[in-house]
Amino acid sequence: MNILIVYAHPEPRSLNAALKDFAVRHLESQGHHVQVSDLYAMKFKAVLDADDSVEHPADERFSPSDASRRAFADGTQAADIIAEQAKLQWADAVILQFPLWWFGLPAILKGWVERVYAYGFAYGVGEHSDRHWGDRYGEGRLAGKRAMLMVSMGGWASHYSERGINGPLNDILFPIQHGILFYPGFEVLPPFAVYRTSRVDDAGFAAACKALGQRLDGLWSDAPIPFRRQNGGDYVIPALTLRPELAPGRDGLGVHVAD
Amino acid sequence: MNILIVYAHPEPRSLNAALKDFAVRHLESQGHHVQVSDLYAMKFKAVLDADDSVEHPADERFSPSDASRRAFADGTQAADIIAEQAKLQWADAVILQFPLWWFGLPAILKGWVERVYAYGFAYGVGEHSDRHWGDRYGEGRLAGKRAMLMVSMGGWASHYSERGINGPLNDILFPIQHGILFYPGFEVLPPFAVYRTSRVDDAGFAAACKALGQRLDGLWSDAPIPFRRQNGGDYVIPALTLRPELAPGRDGLGVHVAD
Repeated sequence: MNILIVYAHPEPRSLNAALKDFAVRHLESQGHHVQVSDLYAMKFKAVLDADDSVEHPADERFSPSDASRRAFADGTQAADIIAEQAKLQWADAVILQFPLWWFGLPAILKGWVERVYAYGFAYGVGEHSDRHWGDRYGEGRLAGKRAMLMVSMGGWASHYSERGINGPLNDILFPIQHGILFYPGFEVLPPFAVYRTSRVDDAGFAAACKALGQRLDGLWSDAPIPFRRQNGGDYVIPALTLRPELAPGRDGLGVHVAD
Repeated sequence: MNILIVYAHPEPRSLNAALKDFAVRHLESQGHHVQVSDLYAMKFKAVLDADDSVEHPADERFSPSDASRRAFADGTQAADIIAEQAKLQWADAVILQFPLWWFGLPAILKGWVERVYAYGFAYGVGEHSDRHWGDRYGEGRLAGKRAMLMVSMGGWASHYSERGINGPLNDILFPIQHGILFYPGFEVLPPFAVYRTSRVDDAGFAAACKALGQRLDGLWSDAPIPFRRQNGGDYVIPALTLRPELAPGRDGLGVHVAD
């Protein structure tokens, strides 16, 4: 199988880099093909702007979605965007690997999403009607592929537990796992998390690699998070609210995961 | 009072720009002082790296938190970081204004947080003991100031409602409102949100300005979101889990808001 790792850490001698290198070796030893987009090493352009199309008229009002739609349709996207989209289409599974900075993606990785996820590629896909609100949340161009986050935190696991002060990890990651990965069609596996990174010694690193290896071995067989499909009948269209008979009386992020 | 608006949109003729200009005029007409950090116009450096300290040895392993701590303590931070920290200290209230891109901050604004929120300035502040886990989540250098998000979305309000498919807006924004604003001490006001931006006509813009003006008039009097203080007795330290007698039997992001 083909695996793309989109990796965002500035230091090649970091824990994240060592885990990334382990993942590449482990996957290749199983006969898989791996590509790594090492965003810091690539000096990947983080900021979405008019230069993301090679043909943007200098005096025209810049609408990010209009410009993206036109550039994707006309083949006038910037070369680095085209290259990353090709990697996504090549991949059977995509891993986003990053340290959790301020409870979200590092800016360089957030910018990768904003620029590579073009209109017509990751959003604005498919029919919009009173029965089908675009190919998204379970449908889309990336359907049939799997995705997983590999994330490291300075804090403790308990700080991210169900009643931990930072919020439960899966809730903190909902905008990424549901809003960025499930949205264009990926099946999303539970995240692989490493806590208290400053305290990871040799034994801790060995344990992390062992756990990571098991997760990588399960990329094709582990059960994904059962997010509800938008157009499968669970949501009222176009309000896109969960039907009252599902998860009755509940609200919050958890209702979008099937029981 | 002094208000800092940190603004992230690439197009000066956009709805976001018009709302930002309205906010500046409205606040100034009330006698307040306003500074705007227009991140796109400033070509603000979005990516945290070793260049954020003017004295980083080229061959040294780069640890983001160690480097930030040292640069903040030694006065060797990059000039643009120092300037933004000074604006934060000058401000009585801070507004982060942005279009919600992929359910989070635009990369340029996320990078502003990562770079300006130095170790010793926004984190790594105060005593760490078995009774006090750092000055954060209700304490910190930015305590006594207020903050508010001004956010625009292409989607409908119902899509962000309690059972809407994107997740409730306050849950989607929790990593920002709780993790980025409450963390270093801000009192956080409910967000000001504009939905279906592509359909905002002249009447819609006038209505949005009227609503925004009311929110700006309430910057000093509106009730903040009652996030629970970390060191006030609600959490077990160091596990930082909410005490079992509070919000009993519940979990998820909502438990961190007092009843």
